Amino acid sequence: MRHFEQELEELKGKLLEMSALVESAVQRSVSAVTQKDRSAAEQVFRDEARINQLQIEIDEFAINLLATQQPLAADLRLVVAALKINTDLERMGDLSVHIAQRALSLLTEPVIKPMVDIRHMSALVESMVRKSMDAFVANDADMARSVLASDDAVDSLRTASYHELVSYMEKEPRNIPQALDLIGITRSLERIADHSTNIAEDVLFLVKGIDVRHHAEARQ
Amino acid sequence: MRHFEQELEELKGKLLEMSALVESAVQRSVSAVTQKDRSAAEQVFRDEARINQLQIEIDEFAINLLATQQPLAADLRLVVAALKINTDLERMGDLSVHIAQRALSLLTEPVIKPMVDIRHMSALVESMVRKSMDAFVANDADMARSVLASDDAVDSLRTASYHELVSYMEKEPRNIPQALDLIGITRSLERIADHSTNIAEDVLFLVKGIDVRHHAEARQ
Repeated sequence: MRHFEQELEELKGKLLEMSALVESAVQRSVSAVTQKDRSAAEQVFRDEARINQLQIEIDEFAINLLATQQPLAADLRLVVAALKINTDLERMGDLSVHIAQRALSLLTEPVIKPMVDIRHMSALVESMVRKSMDAFVANDADMARSVLASDDAVDSLRTASYHELVSYMEKEPRNIPQALDLIGITRSLERIADHSTNIAEDVLFLVKGIDVRHHAEARQ
Repeated sequence: MRHFEQELEELKGKLLEMSALVESAVQRSVSAVTQKDRSAAEQVFRDEARINQLQIEIDEFAINLLATQQPLAADLRLVVAALKINTDLERMGDLSVHIAQRALSLLTEPVIKPMVDIRHMSALVESMVRKSMDAFVANDADMARSVLASDDAVDSLRTASYHELVSYMEKEPRNIPQALDLIGITRSLERIADHSTNIAEDVLFLVKGIDVRHHAEARQ
């Protein structure tokens, strides 16, 4: 049993290593956009390979743990949550790569609008990513719920930014390609927020043993 | 053991029920767009609740199976694959809802371009959804590989359609809102194809015991 607890801690540690890489990728991809920082984008592309490798390692580790330790109850739920969180983290890494790719196509263009809303949105999204994983490590249901609350704010910011960008396009068709890149970036940020929400829901399932997915009333 | 095999079959049966609902949702959401069929869109909204409910049931069933049967080797991989496939199917259901929502906003507008490319893309995507689940049920690695091959064709169709829609917007800014809806629809179709690809990769992992994610050379 002692050995088993060590293995669960090791599983958590690997997920934390993965989430640290993903958090950096999200931050760097946004810097690549807002600071026109090519080297930040290139670092995101380089780190993707390590994130993909870690995803495979974590899956193998979790499956091996199920096979050799045959955990029950809360321990079993923890391992299943780890498998799900692993998938969400890897997708967040992919989305950072998408953002970094859009950043490259924006590098040489004059900026059509201040990137204030992207900064606001990304600050919120980055804090969701961090909090969802902190909630996982600390088994903290309150922190997980705070992630769910932030998701609505991200959606509102994205909708406002979308309408603004559409009006930029309508006024000046020359702006269309850049506006589409910016729409793509805010959509990727929104999807990263959605993955953090998935993680927070997994944490609530883990801590409370209740499934809050698709049940708004249970999220309170 | 006899009982255990029955439970594995029941798990597969539940996933097939879920995938049948998801396939219908994809088809109906595309009909809502191409045929301007409001009732098809409304059916997609109604079926979402059942898909969400099934997702929770399947997760519970799989976790309970892990706890009570403690499967090993191929059986364990099957249950883990079921958990992953379940998540992918639910997201495909969400994406059908997005497509159906876009269909509603297109209902009252005159069409700016023939929807030939959406029909082509959706025919390909629907066959990927079906084949990935057929491959799962039949443990068929060749069929799973054919899904991976189709994913590139979907990406090409989407890129071509994207560039065409951007030129429509540039020529006639009045077309911008509709073109953005069409871009959103093709992107959702592309993401449904990505989820089918995830399922096909899980099937290859199941059948061959090798992890083909992120390893293009192993997919051949």
